[in-house]
Amino acid sequence: MPGMIDAHVHIESSMVSPSELGKVLLAAGTTSIVTDPHEIANVCGTEGIKYMICDGRQTPLDISFMLPSSVPCASFEHNGAKLDAKDLKPLYEESEVKGLAEVMDYPAVARRDNDMMQKIKDAQSLGYHADGHGSGLNTEQLDVYRQVGIDTDHECTTKQQALERVAAGFWTFIREGSVERDLKQVIKAVNEENAQRFAFCTDDKLISDLIKQGGISYSIKLAIQNGIRPETAYTIASYNAAQAHKLMNFGALSTGFVADLLILSDVNEVKIEKVMKTGKWIDENDTVTLEFGQKTVHQRLRLKDLALSLSNPLCNVIGIIPNHIETIHLKKKVPIKDGKFVNDFEQDISKMIVVECHKNLGTYGIGLVQGFNIQNGAVATTVGHDSHNIVAVGSDDDSIYAAIQHITALNGGIAVTSVGKVLADMPLPIAGLMSDKPYQEAAKDLHNIIEAFQEISNSNNLEFDPFITLSFLTLPVIPSLKLTDQGLYDFVEGKFIDISIK
Amino acid sequence: MPGMIDAHVHIESSMVSPSELGKVLLAAGTTSIVTDPHEIANVCGTEGIKYMICDGRQTPLDISFMLPSSVPCASFEHNGAKLDAKDLKPLYEESEVKGLAEVMDYPAVARRDNDMMQKIKDAQSLGYHADGHGSGLNTEQLDVYRQVGIDTDHECTTKQQALERVAAGFWTFIREGSVERDLKQVIKAVNEENAQRFAFCTDDKLISDLIKQGGISYSIKLAIQNGIRPETAYTIASYNAAQAHKLMNFGALSTGFVADLLILSDVNEVKIEKVMKTGKWIDENDTVTLEFGQKTVHQRLRLKDLALSLSNPLCNVIGIIPNHIETIHLKKKVPIKDGKFVNDFEQDISKMIVVECHKNLGTYGIGLVQGFNIQNGAVATTVGHDSHNIVAVGSDDDSIYAAIQHITALNGGIAVTSVGKVLADMPLPIAGLMSDKPYQEAAKDLHNIIEAFQEISNSNNLEFDPFITLSFLTLPVIPSLKLTDQGLYDFVEGKFIDISIK
Ligand SMILES: [Fe+2]
Ligand SMILES: [Fe+2]
Repeated sequence: MPGMIDAHVHIESSMVSPSELGKVLLAAGTTSIVTDPHEIANVCGTEGIKYMICDGRQTPLDISFMLPSSVPCASFEHNGAKLDAKDLKPLYEESEVKGLAEVMDYPAVARRDNDMMQKIKDAQSLGYHADGHGSGLNTEQLDVYRQVGIDTDHECTTKQQALERVAAGFWTFIREGSVERDLKQVIKAVNEENAQRFAFCTDDKLISDLIKQGGISYSIKLAIQNGIRPETAYTIASYNAAQAHKLMNFGALSTGFVADLLILSDVNEVKIEKVMKTGKWIDENDTVTLEFGQKTVHQRLRLKDLALSLSNPLCNVIGIIPNHIETIHLKKKVPIKDGKFVNDFEQDISKMIVVECHKNLGTYGIGLVQGFNIQNGAVATTVGHDSHNIVAVGSDDDSIYAAIQHITALNGGIAVTSVGKVLADMPLPIAGLMSDKPYQEAAKDLHNIIEAFQEISNSNNLEFDPFITLSFLTLPVIPSLKLTDQGLYDFVEGKFIDISIK
Repeated sequence: MPGMIDAHVHIESSMVSPSELGKVLLAAGTTSIVTDPHEIANVCGTEGIKYMICDGRQTPLDISFMLPSSVPCASFEHNGAKLDAKDLKPLYEESEVKGLAEVMDYPAVARRDNDMMQKIKDAQSLGYHADGHGSGLNTEQLDVYRQVGIDTDHECTTKQQALERVAAGFWTFIREGSVERDLKQVIKAVNEENAQRFAFCTDDKLISDLIKQGGISYSIKLAIQNGIRPETAYTIASYNAAQAHKLMNFGALSTGFVADLLILSDVNEVKIEKVMKTGKWIDENDTVTLEFGQKTVHQRLRLKDLALSLSNPLCNVIGIIPNHIETIHLKKKVPIKDGKFVNDFEQDISKMIVVECHKNLGTYGIGLVQGFNIQNGAVATTVGHDSHNIVAVGSDDDSIYAAIQHITALNGGIAVTSVGKVLADMPLPIAGLMSDKPYQEAAKDLHNIIEAFQEISNSNNLEFDPFITLSFLTLPVIPSLKLTDQGLYDFVEGKFIDISIK
């Protein structure tokens, strides 16, 4: 079979470096990926993108870079960098750069915002294209995207949405990642006539899941299980993705195409025996992650800052939906002692905090969240979409503070604490997002922090990933109620609100 | 339905100007064509190409130009211009220029000839592509084309050849023109799985046939008659051709695509009621062909030059295959009187002549041809592939000479003479290839010369087009025996030979 192509993936979400990810993906039959270095760009701008390109050059995996179109994700956000069209343009000199990544700022497109139009035009004028991110857009809004030439989307979650996207002229990417698992629904839209307009992507998939399941190989397996002909599934996974991204010499076993191919022992189960990349059989390759060497975590939170005074027990509370990036806007009466919030074990409401950590502004926002089931301890992480400030949640201030101090000392990472002590950590020294360890060790770290979380919580939902769920509670461009370093953000109203309801 | 796209066509072969052709094609539902101005380039080089682009700008028909890759078709040919990579490159500044046309010089590709590689690279480095012309190539040779990135072919005539091309990674264009009618055979290779790699083209189709049958609309009709699903046939005729040529905003009825569409009253019969091009309903438009104003026909043949002395009655004779561009190498005993050839009515062998007419070199070549069935008269034309010198055939020298003199006076055209008098003519003042008249009048001229030919011949084959057949007898890069202004050319031996066999 031709090597598989992941049509849209954020390497940072794997939590390992591009060169380490290459080892895992190649072994799993993915020979090309199209990536959006959106996360590292939010932490350290073009320098971060360049690091990804350079480290990626070590692996035989083909990595096409699409330039992040929305850094920061909202103009009011405190992130690490702002990337305008003029900042992105010079990056097209790198041969790996092939277009503009997931345009997600619908209002900017609708009002034909100058800088957004310039970003799209810069890609198109070089013969490249702009990917879309049409989450929640209706058909009229999808048309607005198409009018400016945005020609892909990977944000549909239902058959109906997928058909709307195909009809609107989008190449439609079917996503199956660690948390967002759209394939079983979206595949219902695929038939032999329209199959050529679909490709597969993982978007965000943890290294542990990639090791366990594979990447696009898992998508193929699921698609076949859901009634897609194997020939069609493998074509979606290779040729179609190449066509969508205008990678004209990829995705087919024929003369003039790059010799990326797989030997399989079981087509339906996608059992891969050997992988060839650019004419060479792939063996475990011994690349070493490039040194990142940048200090990216800076904050000056004090323990006493964590105290949350409430004037009224009726509060706005963030309700999590396990493994979803949306939240529910809850209104709950919470316990108050000496004028201050205390952890509500009965209703499962805990304190959370977001601490600015790029420019040491000293800003932080405190909020309340329901659903983590933490009994005794805290979790903190430097992965907090999209601005990647520190985000933490816990049952007591000492544990929260200890976790935050620990990941600051690590210059990025995830920590689980209890009674003020560190139980487990995963250092993420590359921009606070990626491990610099070999993928096996990174996967072990990931395993350790998940075990530690199970110790401090009484969640029995093994599917629930608290770290990913936590990392999206900070993203203000997604409904409904989010927390940033500037406070509680009401997506529906489009403004910051108080915790206490007067 | 989306507007139809002709994936490969030589406008010159219609015998009208680009602006006139636009009227006919738009009415017949073709809204875009990809053209190779190969013929006019052989007569007047880049100036000819620029004329085609400029005249084409008058019609709403979308015309993408691919730059002719083999001018002249063979290094020894006496044509009007030589186009190297350095001559072609500046033409990419014209926005209509989208790539390199039908690469036909297999040996140049196989030996990686510098100039040929440069032409291909120039197209590819701008994000464009190179069309192929893989007539008669075997699978190893097709691979050689693919190795340099040539990615289309329109020269297969059988199911087997079509499948070989698809397997080799070519977009395969199914040709149905005036003379080369490959569709009924090639369509047998098309199934629902591989259909996306096929498109339709006409290559060479006379204005009279386009008026009568339509262009790509006729291909659709034939395809449906031959068992292709209408949905698939219409997709081949629009979306697929756009994809093959990387015309990303063409070929579909969806937002972000150019509004080229057809209203049909009968899908299977392809009955077109209305045509929209770029959002406007097409009415008869009143463009006027741009003045060409270049004197392109120069020769100084004398009547006595036509006498053909033969030392031996056993001669090499060109055997025509009606409506085919290949010929048969015959060896025949012919009648000789006073040491000179006289027309052989019994065996249907006549004298033919090719007269250099671009640089007035004074060169001419005489040969013998079997199959025109001319009883009393002659035919001469300035359409003689690919060098477009004058080519004539006839039963007596007076008639041949009169026809040649007449088309020279017209500065290009076709004439039919008898007993030294002109019976009918078709003036082709645009490079000796195209009429400057409205298409209705050009079609009338074409009708008249065909009627006149029937007068002087006793051919009862109504399908036989003597002018097109004659125009290919001069093409030395096609088997088997051809005539140029430098004499009789043996394709198999790769050299010029004498008429008499010693
Ligand atoms: Fe994404
Ligand atoms: Fe052609």
